[in-house]
Amino acid sequence: MKRAVVLLSGGIDSTTTLSVAKEEGHEVYALSFDYGQRHGIELESARMNAKRFNVKKHLVINFNLRDIGGSALTSDIKVPKARAEAGNIPITYVPARNTIFLSFALAWAETIRASDIFIGANAVDYSGYPDCRPEFIKAFENMANLATKASVEGPVKFRVHAPLIKLTKAEIIKKGAELGVDYSLTWSCYDPVVETGKPCMQCDSCLLRAKGFKEAGIKDQLINYSD
Amino acid sequence: MKRAVVLLSGGIDSTTTLSVAKEEGHEVYALSFDYGQRHGIELESARMNAKRFNVKKHLVINFNLRDIGGSALTSDIKVPKARAEAGNIPITYVPARNTIFLSFALAWAETIRASDIFIGANAVDYSGYPDCRPEFIKAFENMANLATKASVEGPVKFRVHAPLIKLTKAEIIKKGAELGVDYSLTWSCYDPVVETGKPCMQCDSCLLRAKGFKEAGIKDQLINYSD
Repeated sequence: MKRAVVLLSGGIDSTTTLSVAKEEGHEVYALSFDYGQRHGIELESARMNAKRFNVKKHLVINFNLRDIGGSALTSDIKVPKARAEAGNIPITYVPARNTIFLSFALAWAETIRASDIFIGANAVDYSGYPDCRPEFIKAFENMANLATKASVEGPVKFRVHAPLIKLTKAEIIKKGAELGVDYSLTWSCYDPVVETGKPCMQCDSCLLRAKGFKEAGIKDQLINYSD
Repeated sequence: MKRAVVLLSGGIDSTTTLSVAKEEGHEVYALSFDYGQRHGIELESARMNAKRFNVKKHLVINFNLRDIGGSALTSDIKVPKARAEAGNIPITYVPARNTIFLSFALAWAETIRASDIFIGANAVDYSGYPDCRPEFIKAFENMANLATKASVEGPVKFRVHAPLIKLTKAEIIKKGAELGVDYSLTWSCYDPVVETGKPCMQCDSCLLRAKGFKEAGIKDQLINYSD
């Protein structure tokens, strides 16, 4: 089986990407980060989904992006309770986050002799983050193949796969549902309600999720207001 | 003053690079990493040099590359006591290390609105690491300008400076000595003598350092065997 490193945050996109990597027959090494994000719920989701998809190994790397800040997710800036305006990159953007995540994925891939890296980046129903665009993914892949012993000395050519990059959120949810994703184990909310621990249903990520499920014609089992 | 992020390990190359960034008039934000390397002496050297050059801020980011391994510097593999053979990338190579370091530098640069990043990469008297070559630096810079809000929305163009990339170790030492570097505050040894804490004088990094000082005609004040 061909090994692959899959970035796994525990949200809809990364979990669906994990299901795609498994479907393609990869032996999956799942990689998550405890980077000082606002809450730990998404890491718990990542753990549950790694287990559900029977990954070979799930590694969580710790560092503190709060020392750098610059985002509503890694500082005391409030998370806006609305969809981000089109054309503006919202304050939930975390500087160079996907670059950092992919760099660790590259280090792990080289060490375990994997040449495939999967990321759930999406450029359609997304928040306008620059590091989710195809041109960024391509530039990272190009850099990766100049950065490593494996690619310079050996026969390895790293490939960064972003299988969801051209899908709408609804298409992603339909694909994942086919491949066995249990979306009740995924987490999207940037800023859950403190008292109840439930998704706020007002942040950009919650609103995108709701729009996706609605358009897919699938009920979101995570969110059940009759609870 | 123009802000710059300078990667600072506390060795000869990064400290000389810091002196170049200061000489060029930058307000320096120095960035070091506690990544599970074999010893903490180099971090202490980084702190002393950051202070000596009066940087605006010195940030140390912690993560554990021992979880990934794959190098004599981040696992229990022994450090070879000899110069690396020409043409082979030695076992002290740490997978994707400069990619990871530059990614954090990019995150910090974007957050503090700096467009200049300095790295002490060197492709002449070096250990054959692929992520010290000009083509890697250029590819990272290209990727960085597609990765960030600052470069996509705004007028920022990130530049990754590697001012030592074409210098010999002797030329680096001569340049740093002119710019006020106190090399007795720098550290190179991969694997210091446990009993004394002194440089081993046998690893690739010690041997490169000794060759550099000899060719520069300068005495290495760190190493004094009359102690």
